[in-house]
Amino acid sequence: AEVKKIAVISGDGIGPEVIAEAEKVLKKTEEVFGYRFETEHGLFGGIAIDQKGTPLPQDTLDMCKNADAVLLGAVGGPQWDNNPKELRPETGLLGIRKALGLFSNIRPAVIFDCLKDASTLKPEVLEGTDLIVVRELTGGIYFGEKFRRDGDNGQEAVDTCVYNVQEIERIARQAFEIARTRSKKLASVDKANVLETSRLWRETVIRISADYPDVELEHVLVDNCAMQLLRRPSSFDVIVTENMFGDILSDEAAMLTGSIGMLSSASLGEGAFGLYEPVHGSAPDIAGQGAANPIATILSVALMFRLTFGYHDAAEAIERAVKEVLDAGHRTGDIAVDKSTAIGTTAMGDLIVDAI
Amino acid sequence: AEVKKIAVISGDGIGPEVIAEAEKVLKKTEEVFGYRFETEHGLFGGIAIDQKGTPLPQDTLDMCKNADAVLLGAVGGPQWDNNPKELRPETGLLGIRKALGLFSNIRPAVIFDCLKDASTLKPEVLEGTDLIVVRELTGGIYFGEKFRRDGDNGQEAVDTCVYNVQEIERIARQAFEIARTRSKKLASVDKANVLETSRLWRETVIRISADYPDVELEHVLVDNCAMQLLRRPSSFDVIVTENMFGDILSDEAAMLTGSIGMLSSASLGEGAFGLYEPVHGSAPDIAGQGAANPIATILSVALMFRLTFGYHDAAEAIERAVKEVLDAGHRTGDIAVDKSTAIGTTAMGDLIVDAI
Ligand SMILES: CC(C)[C@H](C(=O)O)[C@@H](O)C(=O)O
Ligand SMILES: CC(C)[C@H](C(=O)O)[C@@H](O)C(=O)O
Repeated sequence: AEVKKIAVISGDGIGPEVIAEAEKVLKKTEEVFGYRFETEHGLFGGIAIDQKGTPLPQDTLDMCKNADAVLLGAVGGPQWDNNPKELRPETGLLGIRKALGLFSNIRPAVIFDCLKDASTLKPEVLEGTDLIVVRELTGGIYFGEKFRRDGDNGQEAVDTCVYNVQEIERIARQAFEIARTRSKKLASVDKANVLETSRLWRETVIRISADYPDVELEHVLVDNCAMQLLRRPSSFDVIVTENMFGDILSDEAAMLTGSIGMLSSASLGEGAFGLYEPVHGSAPDIAGQGAANPIATILSVALMFRLTFGYHDAAEAIERAVKEVLDAGHRTGDIAVDKSTAIGTTAMGDLIVDAI
Repeated sequence: AEVKKIAVISGDGIGPEVIAEAEKVLKKTEEVFGYRFETEHGLFGGIAIDQKGTPLPQDTLDMCKNADAVLLGAVGGPQWDNNPKELRPETGLLGIRKALGLFSNIRPAVIFDCLKDASTLKPEVLEGTDLIVVRELTGGIYFGEKFRRDGDNGQEAVDTCVYNVQEIERIARQAFEIARTRSKKLASVDKANVLETSRLWRETVIRISADYPDVELEHVLVDNCAMQLLRRPSSFDVIVTENMFGDILSDEAAMLTGSIGMLSSASLGEGAFGLYEPVHGSAPDIAGQGAANPIATILSVALMFRLTFGYHDAAEAIERAVKEVLDAGHRTGDIAVDKSTAIGTTAMGDLIVDAI
């Protein structure tokens, strides 16, 4: 098989620990399926700030640009929280998204049967929940002009939310395409009763929908969506929304599954290139203890196989292995009901590797 | 007793039906407690668009300005959704908030014991939840400049989010004051890792906190707050946040109580003046059927008595009456487990009036 180049960014906190397990999984799929991967490692986030004085060093960015896909652990931690903006891990995250043109963040929120009880929602409400939030990732208030100025009532701060038609079109098309492969239902979330960007959003989504007559489109206001996710999570399938709303709603959706240590995400641009990472953060409180759950990162590899490489057999093998290990009752601390029986990061990784 | 002037705005959908019950409650408290109210009615929202060609007629605004408090039913409906901006009910809502200087929206999210099961959250998670969202209501992206322009990639839409120090100070002080009367815990929600307005928000809240050393302050990022509301709702007490985040989070908080037909809200400015309204909307689907739950509107009267008039005895009587009627098993359709036993809007209002 052709050699695929994967840029690996461990990052901060539990990042290196969960990435190590994902790399074991990569190696195992080479053996079992004959695929070939070349991995390269780069500094990013807090560790890059400490060692290189910037969260996104140029050589890390170059490495990512030369790769077929990026696998990211997690970034951030309290020690960098009060740094000036250009020395914060988040700035690196926003920078890499923009520099790699990753305009779309895809976050599946699924229920793992054996973890149903971990949710704070009633099991009968959660039943059948399987949704994807498609979040616009390189536009909106995240990337608009920001500044301070003196006003009549003291200092003022300004953030600008901007969207153009082309940005909305490409994310809308992607969401419609994904909806087409699933149950053909798309919910577009905006605040069209207040925001001009939302009105342009809604008009554009409606125009694009003409090309997808087989997909049923509904428009949901963001405040209502925050409610409906709680009231009827299983009635959603694909949700598409702008950057800021997507940040909030995708976290809400992830939490209601109760399986946040298990969820993976993909950030995509034009073409097959993508950046894959777990939904959970760097968890500085348990970093270095070998206690982190590597499953979300391992499932990010499966997502990479599906969306970037088209290696569906290996993706399926990984997903099946995870299910098998969970069904056999193995749990890391975050998902164990009886904490005394919890296994560590490497033990979980080994079990999954063996099951592939 | 001094005559208090109350401007009453029924609005659209179920608005007139629930307001009628609240007015019966007003009358009853006059008889029982000797208070004196003068009510005046004005057109607002969709009905004002239809009859006067504008959602906020000048005489309605004048009536509100001359009153000691405003009682609002609900506005909006599908028939006005596609109108141009200046002919939409929401425009009236934003206009009245701004014109009356109502910079603070206070939404208590409490659990009614007898309705615990109505929530989609597990009862043990919900146990003890009693929080208030204090939302900034006249600033931020709602009121900043909005426009379209031609850009390199087609038409662009722009919304501007602006906050000045004084706007943040006054809402922060109000939240600290409220926290002081409760369990002395305040969560300030922002997105300081991305937004300049959030950084000014956080700096200002920290500065104001020096005047409230008895209140414990925590900062929560908005995405994390959307998650934590689900994971540990009972650990929140007072939450303060900017306009857009408050719109989303207060709806999420309301929904997790399972009691959305029961929740009231207050919008306050400087001084005692306030606008009171149920959290629920105009429910066009059940309008005119006498099926709406009037309790949220009736409890809005109690909130008005507490916050604007200082009539704590009458407020308590109303709240006690509502509890008594619910404890006796009476339910409107929205909160009835067995729908066949549900009573109507006026029957519920009568029972509460009798219990006062
Ligand atoms: C860390 C932060 C800048 C980032 C975001 O808001 O996009 C994070 O919350 C996420 O969702 O990936
Ligand atoms: C109708 C709409 C403009 C309004 C808002 O977003 O403020 C509503 O959602 C609310 O919360 O009162």
